[in-house]
Amino acid sequence: NRSVTIKTLVFPSETSDSYVEMVPLKPLQLKAFTLCMRLATELKGEREVILFAYRTGDYDELNVWRELDGRLSFYLSGDGVFFQVPELGALKTHLCVTWDSSSGAATVFMDGRKSLTKIYKKGHTIRAGGKVLLGQDPDSYLGDYDAKQSFVGEVCDVNMWDSVLPDRTIKDLVSGKRVQRGNVFDWETIQLKISGTVEVIHREL
Amino acid sequence: NRSVTIKTLVFPSETSDSYVEMVPLKPLQLKAFTLCMRLATELKGEREVILFAYRTGDYDELNVWRELDGRLSFYLSGDGVFFQVPELGALKTHLCVTWDSSSGAATVFMDGRKSLTKIYKKGHTIRAGGKVLLGQDPDSYLGDYDAKQSFVGEVCDVNMWDSVLPDRTIKDLVSGKRVQRGNVFDWETIQLKISGTVEVIHREL
Amino acid sequence: NRSVTIKTLVFPSETSDSYVEMVPLKPLQLKAFTLCMRLATELKGEREVILFAYRTGDYDELNVWRELDGRLSFYLSGDGVFFQVPELGALKTHLCVTWDSSSGAATVFMDGRKSLTKIYKKGHTIRAGGKVLLGQDPDSYLGDYDAKQSFVGEVCDVNMWDSVLPDRTIKDLVSGKRVQRGNVFDWETIQLKISGTVEVIHREL
Repeated sequence: NRSVTIKTLVFPSETSDSYVEMVPLKPLQLKAFTLCMRLATELKGEREVILFAYRTGDYDELNVWRELDGRLSFYLSGDGVFFQVPELGALKTHLCVTWDSSSGAATVFMDGRKSLTKIYKKGHTIRAGGKVLLGQDPDSYLGDYDAKQSFVGEVCDVNMWDSVLPDRTIKDLVSGKRVQRGNVFDWETIQLKISGTVEVIHREL
Repeated sequence: NRSVTIKTLVFPSETSDSYVEMVPLKPLQLKAFTLCMRLATELKGEREVILFAYRTGDYDELNVWRELDGRLSFYLSGDGVFFQVPELGALKTHLCVTWDSSSGAATVFMDGRKSLTKIYKKGHTIRAGGKVLLGQDPDSYLGDYDAKQSFVGEVCDVNMWDSVLPDRTIKDLVSGKRVQRGNVFDWETIQLKISGTVEVIHREL
Repeated sequence: NRSVTIKTLVFPSETSDSYVEMVPLKPLQLKAFTLCMRLATELKGEREVILFAYRTGDYDELNVWRELDGRLSFYLSGDGVFFQVPELGALKTHLCVTWDSSSGAATVFMDGRKSLTKIYKKGHTIRAGGKVLLGQDPDSYLGDYDAKQSFVGEVCDVNMWDSVLPDRTIKDLVSGKRVQRGNVFDWETIQLKISGTVEVIHREL
């Protein structure tokens, strides 16, 4: 039996109070990371969509966005880095974001296809001590949510590593091979704290 | 030799009288189905395109469309269900549509990528006794075709099952593995009735 | 170790004087070809982008373009042939173009997905004796470059054959299998002559 079933989060509608907190396996003091997830959303047109938010008291430490114009981006405490990629839509996309402080190399992968490399925040360190949310972007520490930036759709298989994975490993993840469990977030064993209207269902990968 | 050659239908231009009737292996009284095909079309912009039409005397029993705005949709006797997906184009797309009456679960797959699931027409049954056409949408029983909705491009490998195939089987179909022949339509042995200007050629899969 | 590292050309900005000449293994007197490359560019909107230029004294013998409207095209001494395909972007695309004089069959492949076939310049022969450039389109023999048509982004793995490769071989190339080295251009051993600002870096494939 080659099929795999995993839990999926469904955010059925636009809200300012539905979100899921993900409890990490270790503090997010990071000089490098790989963050992957599978997601589908039919939000489009002039609409920002938050895909992942990690905030400490005063800073958006690591926020991943679908921008107004359809680009993907991420922000490490300040200005972001942007990627011109195919639009997210109803088809599930396997998305990864990688960043390494020593070189500043930032890339995204969609369904295993790697982007060109951008140099971003060389020497920076992501700080520990905050909270990670799916579904909402907190404009203050765990508050001030904006429905017009909320996530609507399905998201699952959110995994994170404190290093940059090889391209080949990311391709294996896309095809469902459980080659390496995340050491910051591991979706199979993750503890989730759900607020508002979010359905947890199980789907074939 | 790993290559496979199959027959392909080429609809070279917009017409209101070119279509292909597909003769099914069994009546289309269906409480579930998987419908797959490979297709390419350069029609775009504000243009509806019929991809598959199954009509009985008074009803469009199962029609698959590329909508004016580029979404894919299908209709089971009434309002349809819509999916925000990448645009069809010159590159051949392996498209599947699945539906199951017991849960109402409706999904599309493009090149093996699965969409989010929508709940549609739970409890409905598709009726037997009609005709299946490629190329035109009949607005009455086998008549009243509209050139502005006709299919222009290539289509092949149209197969249909009376059940929802596992995701993994659909991925195998995309890569050309003949894992399971369609039991409603089987492109390898199908009987086609061609009207108007439709070329039948043979291409490597 | 399944990873492969190859040299990549980075054109960091719009110029009218940065280009790379590729020295062929044999004269480009061709009655058929397969031309493949991997590329990423964030140029978009109303912008032509030259992807490959082969010019003899008076003719653009084989030019590959991203057109103003996003279509891909190629030109053999005169009017071109056009393909409605997904937009190039920040994700690396494996692009192949094939043409065969005897049938006139012209196709493109993006990441192994084949386009519909167009009939183009049946009986034509590409002439030997010119120069092949990446980055600029010469409007005269090695001169008159237009910054507004220049390539900006990354390109690598440019290989060319004097025949049409089987679809299956192209799929193998996409996944990085070195199944068959180009006999007109072979990126592993190619001699490059760089002018202007072009960075040569090494990346995992």
